Amino acid sequence: MSRHFLAEGSPELSGGDYGIVAVVAVVALSALVIGYFLLKEVLAAGQGTEKMQEIAKAVQEGAAAYLNRQRKTLAVFGVLVFLLLFALPAEDWSERIGRSLFFLVGAVFSFSIGYLGMWLSTRANVRVAAAAREPGGREKAMRIAFRTGGVVGMITVGLGLFGAAVVVLVYAGQAPKVLEGFGFGAALIAMFMRVGGGIFTKAADVGADLVGKVEQGIPEDDPRNAATIADNVGDNVGDCAGMAADLFESYAVTLVAALILGSAAFGAAGYGLTFPLIIPAIGVITAVIGIYITRARAGESGLTTINRSFYISAVISAVLSAIAAFIFLPSSFDGAPGNPAVIATVSVIIGIALAGVILWLTGYYTGTEHGPVKNVGKTSETGAATVILSGISVGFESAVFTALVIGGAVFGAYLLGGAVALFAVALAGTGLLTTVGVIVAMDTFGPVSDNAQGIAEMSGDLEEGEGVQILTELDAVGNTTKAITKGIAISTAVLAATALFGSYSEAILGALRGMGDAVTTLPESFADSIIVPNTLVGVIIGAAVVFLFSGLAVNAVSRAAGAVVHEVRRQFRDIPGIMEGTTRPEYGRVVDIVTRDSLRELATPGLLAVFAPIAVGFGLGTGALAGYLGGAIATGTLMAVFLANSGGAWDNAKKLVEDGHHGGKNSDAHAATVIGDTVGDPFKDTAGPAINPLLKVMNLVSLLIAPAVVQFTVGPDASLGIRLAIALVAVGIIVAAIVVSKRRGTAISETSAQQQTTNA
Amino acid sequence: MSRHFLAEGSPELSGGDYGIVAVVAVVALSALVIGYFLLKEVLAAGQGTEKMQEIAKAVQEGAAAYLNRQRKTLAVFGVLVFLLLFALPAEDWSERIGRSLFFLVGAVFSFSIGYLGMWLSTRANVRVAAAAREPGGREKAMRIAFRTGGVVGMITVGLGLFGAAVVVLVYAGQAPKVLEGFGFGAALIAMFMRVGGGIFTKAADVGADLVGKVEQGIPEDDPRNAATIADNVGDNVGDCAGMAADLFESYAVTLVAALILGSAAFGAAGYGLTFPLIIPAIGVITAVIGIYITRARAGESGLTTINRSFYISAVISAVLSAIAAFIFLPSSFDGAPGNPAVIATVSVIIGIALAGVILWLTGYYTGTEHGPVKNVGKTSETGAATVILSGISVGFESAVFTALVIGGAVFGAYLLGGAVALFAVALAGTGLLTTVGVIVAMDTFGPVSDNAQGIAEMSGDLEEGEGVQILTELDAVGNTTKAITKGIAISTAVLAATALFGSYSEAILGALRGMGDAVTTLPESFADSIIVPNTLVGVIIGAAVVFLFSGLAVNAVSRAAGAVVHEVRRQFRDIPGIMEGTTRPEYGRVVDIVTRDSLRELATPGLLAVFAPIAVGFGLGTGALAGYLGGAIATGTLMAVFLANSGGAWDNAKKLVEDGHHGGKNSDAHAATVIGDTVGDPFKDTAGPAINPLLKVMNLVSLLIAPAVVQFTVGPDASLGIRLAIALVAVGIIVAAIVVSKRRGTAISETSAQQQTTNA
Repeated sequence: MSRHFLAEGSPELSGGDYGIVAVVAVVALSALVIGYFLLKEVLAAGQGTEKMQEIAKAVQEGAAAYLNRQRKTLAVFGVLVFLLLFALPAEDWSERIGRSLFFLVGAVFSFSIGYLGMWLSTRANVRVAAAAREPGGREKAMRIAFRTGGVVGMITVGLGLFGAAVVVLVYAGQAPKVLEGFGFGAALIAMFMRVGGGIFTKAADVGADLVGKVEQGIPEDDPRNAATIADNVGDNVGDCAGMAADLFESYAVTLVAALILGSAAFGAAGYGLTFPLIIPAIGVITAVIGIYITRARAGESGLTTINRSFYISAVISAVLSAIAAFIFLPSSFDGAPGNPAVIATVSVIIGIALAGVILWLTGYYTGTEHGPVKNVGKTSETGAATVILSGISVGFESAVFTALVIGGAVFGAYLLGGAVALFAVALAGTGLLTTVGVIVAMDTFGPVSDNAQGIAEMSGDLEEGEGVQILTELDAVGNTTKAITKGIAISTAVLAATALFGSYSEAILGALRGMGDAVTTLPESFADSIIVPNTLVGVIIGAAVVFLFSGLAVNAVSRAAGAVVHEVRRQFRDIPGIMEGTTRPEYGRVVDIVTRDSLRELATPGLLAVFAPIAVGFGLGTGALAGYLGGAIATGTLMAVFLANSGGAWDNAKKLVEDGHHGGKNSDAHAATVIGDTVGDPFKDTAGPAINPLLKVMNLVSLLIAPAVVQFTVGPDASLGIRLAIALVAVGIIVAAIVVSKRRGTAISETSAQQQTTNA
Repeated sequence: MSRHFLAEGSPELSGGDYGIVAVVAVVALSALVIGYFLLKEVLAAGQGTEKMQEIAKAVQEGAAAYLNRQRKTLAVFGVLVFLLLFALPAEDWSERIGRSLFFLVGAVFSFSIGYLGMWLSTRANVRVAAAAREPGGREKAMRIAFRTGGVVGMITVGLGLFGAAVVVLVYAGQAPKVLEGFGFGAALIAMFMRVGGGIFTKAADVGADLVGKVEQGIPEDDPRNAATIADNVGDNVGDCAGMAADLFESYAVTLVAALILGSAAFGAAGYGLTFPLIIPAIGVITAVIGIYITRARAGESGLTTINRSFYISAVISAVLSAIAAFIFLPSSFDGAPGNPAVIATVSVIIGIALAGVILWLTGYYTGTEHGPVKNVGKTSETGAATVILSGISVGFESAVFTALVIGGAVFGAYLLGGAVALFAVALAGTGLLTTVGVIVAMDTFGPVSDNAQGIAEMSGDLEEGEGVQILTELDAVGNTTKAITKGIAISTAVLAATALFGSYSEAILGALRGMGDAVTTLPESFADSIIVPNTLVGVIIGAAVVFLFSGLAVNAVSRAAGAVVHEVRRQFRDIPGIMEGTTRPEYGRVVDIVTRDSLRELATPGLLAVFAPIAVGFGLGTGALAGYLGGAIATGTLMAVFLANSGGAWDNAKKLVEDGHHGGKNSDAHAATVIGDTVGDPFKDTAGPAINPLLKVMNLVSLLIAPAVVQFTVGPDASLGIRLAIALVAVGIIVAAIVVSKRRGTAISETSAQQQTTNA
């Protein structure tokens, strides 16, 4: 047991503590204000030609329509979970109400940030394209694209920090329980936005490519392709809205984990509830610096510029955090060895250094200028099979090193932490958080540049020359920044999940203590180590759920892409004049189809994430559930990095060939890398990034159900009947969801087969 | 702790017990005799035309040359490990000497079975091809192919059972420690044979296809391709020798685990050392039945025939095992609740049923007549990218269900077992073993049929018509049986590893008890559950090693295939008349190159398997090592099934298209499935199956080093210096091996790039 890591008793906040938290809240609000000014700056830029605006408007409308429909779907789901959450055991009414209320707050924040990210990026894209046409266009275009990201970054950290600070101000010692609700709301909605948006963006992208590039031989973003608008909408609802919600969730959950463990680490003293808020507040300040110092320099790659901003703001964060630790933390624990200020300083620096190393590592494995991608490019000379194999090798290898680096950071913080080992791990997480503002900006930069290029291409209003070159460069830079930030997101997942693991143990112990004399010993399987087959079976199931979730996500993309192919083919066939460019295709119909399919497809993986821990916990007990979480974290980390980086490597290998290596565009080598890129699309933009919120959701569900699981598995209320009934219902829901989605798959491919027969 | 599962004290064998073990040894020897008679029957068959014999001879020589060189490499490695093993702590000299001696016996048995498998299959292939030309050819050809497998099956179970019985007869109560050595020798050599043979077979196959099919447009097995002989040699050294050694290792290690836990479960009574031998002895009898009743029937698919034999022999095994349990086991434990006879019966039946379910499940996911492969075939109409994605989905999904079924079997045996839970899991493993004889026969059937078709094709001595059709059918059946047996192999790995996990715990506790008063409490991290970050980091590293091992294996194939491509291209260019068929290519040079490269490439994954647990154990302690094993087992199971089944699905999807679906041979759909098949080759025949011995090797290494790890981490001898020194040396060896293999990769691709520049 890790009981001895956690001091007894709830923390009490002194007047000074309240003052600190209030200052943090003000810093958080300032971030929102700065975000507002950045927003005004972006919107003030020129919007280009009428044709460009017309295209941008179509994308705006499609994206808004999708998110509005998604909001309705998620609202139903949110209300259901709200009620379930309300029904779960709680200490008192204040906790019960707070937990459910802040679940809604977390959910609404998560959705709003996603919506805002989409709203702004669909307006920024055309402004970036317009800026590229002007004199001095490179600097202007890059500035607009990066500051768009800056807006989203500021809102992300502002809302996350403000929400957490308010909970601490209002609930003080009860804050941890309420924060569980807040984090869960954020993670749950983010997972759905990631999965839904990820399916949308890749179904449209793959569908558009399969008919356009492969069958009809027309270029990407060609206006004759009925799926082009949907493809551009996808960039915004997947890469912008989904990603923004995801990073908000990472921010909120990591913060929540740190506050929960902090309050446990310092007993009655308030440090544990103030210090984890101070570090991200420092991150707000350094993020502002990072965003404002990012200026394109002539003769320097855009990536170098952005990386420099990241590293400068990371170093400033480290210095300020160390100073804060020595000001705000005591120099000894109450009765335990170790110096809290030193432990906190080193832990936070471990987190910041982890971000830097991951940034470098991902860049190495997915950037065009390093060995791995060059090697994948080279294998294009022997065909698509070797491209796939070399990309998979790159993915495996990078996953291993990334996992070892993250594992090393966890272990370092753990060793260092002594009596507060888990809190040290959580503090390393807050160190990572100081970089989130800049990370969100980097990530949003990607889809905005991608869209700008798309709009320029579709409008035909950008003459060949400097403007096109600027947008191509920004697009390539955006590809790499998008890949890099995925590594950071999964790192936050591991740190937060490891820390939440400690909270899980605390929840189990708390529930057992609550039973008083009825239980004198711990349930055996929980106290036992991983070598008990019960726990090991949990580990196997946890690993299996990650595989299943990934498979479901990839499958959903294939199915939805099939529907797109079907519709685009139909339009080419039934609407005369599309190929000649005299009639416009019906873009809206494709957007509608992808919207409908993505919303339908997100249910199965979503239900799996929520109900699998319930099935394991009630069915096999607390020990198996702990094993389940461990297996999911370990396999999830590797799988997420594998999927993201092999996809990133294929994408950039294609770019390498398009830049004239190994035969250049339209060579056999190019065709081989296009196949690699298509395989990588659902890997890197659907399945891979969704694993991050998946891990958080599963951890938080386990944490929330822990007392109920204990109630029905140990002590006087233990009931095999109730346990099995709950487990069977959970398994039933998962199985039903999978069966329904399989049926749908068959129906679609049958329709498609019938249609082909009719045509023949 | 699972201390309470294991009774104290070593078992003592009564005279009756010795009698039982002696009878088992006689049954084992009978299996060898039956194998000899089957062998004579196979060799007595006709050998076909002179040209066929000439080709067969080339394959025989190439395969023998490879295995002889491999033997020398492995001998060096074996002697080193022998010395290391001798140096590890032991209770007394008898244990020390026995453990090292039987390590050598296990290693020699493992290699010999592999060698015999190769020797016989390179002689049976031509006989199968010859039989197909005769009247009534279908029945004769199938009979020879299946009985060839029967020989290997009989020798596998005969040597495995004989070895274990002799150890029990000689060492009685000390047998468990000596058996660890026996199992380790078998697993270590099998892993190297699997990896080396797997790299050989797929490097030759992929290399041959890339130049032959893709560049020159000549069919498979065309004699103008310099790599064809190497390709056929590969089938024998990879699919025959590697697989036979692997299944022997599965047999031996599962038996070892059952004997170790059996001796712990019954305290001083001898049941635990006799009953785990009785069940496999029953398996010998039923395997003989299974092999002799396999006769082709007109109008029935070969697969149905083989599956019927499997299911019949499985049912007989179940009945006989139940009878044996009630005869040979007592009806109550000495002082613990539960009926041993009932527990044993149900556990063994769980194991047998598991084999049946896995057989069905794998057949469902990889057979041409079911939905999954049909669906992969259908996606070939939209190109290679969708083929890859759908195959990966099939792999993920099948891995999940397979893992859940295996997990369910472990959990079922565990729940049932009560006080002897781990022994029940091990007994389920022995239940699986009763099917191994038939499984080996099924598996060997694959490469023999594949080779027979290759020889027929190359010789040109088989007219179009019935003969060709027979061989094509047998080849397709072989493809499926090969895929199916991989699922069984990984199941044995999970059961054996779970059981060995218990032995690991016992080893740690034994070492602690040995320290007497110096240690009063267990080392914290070992007693703690998976939620301790230390353990969780172990889980992450264990999962990472599986990814790394898979990546290394796939990479090794790519590198070695690159060298083959290089050489075949050179021969086409430098030797005039090859393409016209007037000059023979230099087959031997390609065989030499693949031999050299495979032996070089097997070092890195092999060193990783041995040294990673050493690094984790000494570096992070016993708790992290337990986590490491758990992570490796969970991820390894999923990864092995994923790799095997996606590869199997791609292979058979290609067969579907070649049979005339979706456009048939030489259509775009066919090209797409060829790409899928090429990607699947190293998945299903190199990386995937090697994970099975990998898991065993890592478990046994952990078991063997456990006392030393305890010695240096707890108690009076604890030394941080020694621990870290050992861990760093282990890490250093792994890193050095990886760096060397990376360098080599660069060197080869640079040579190849240079050569291309020179050509241009």
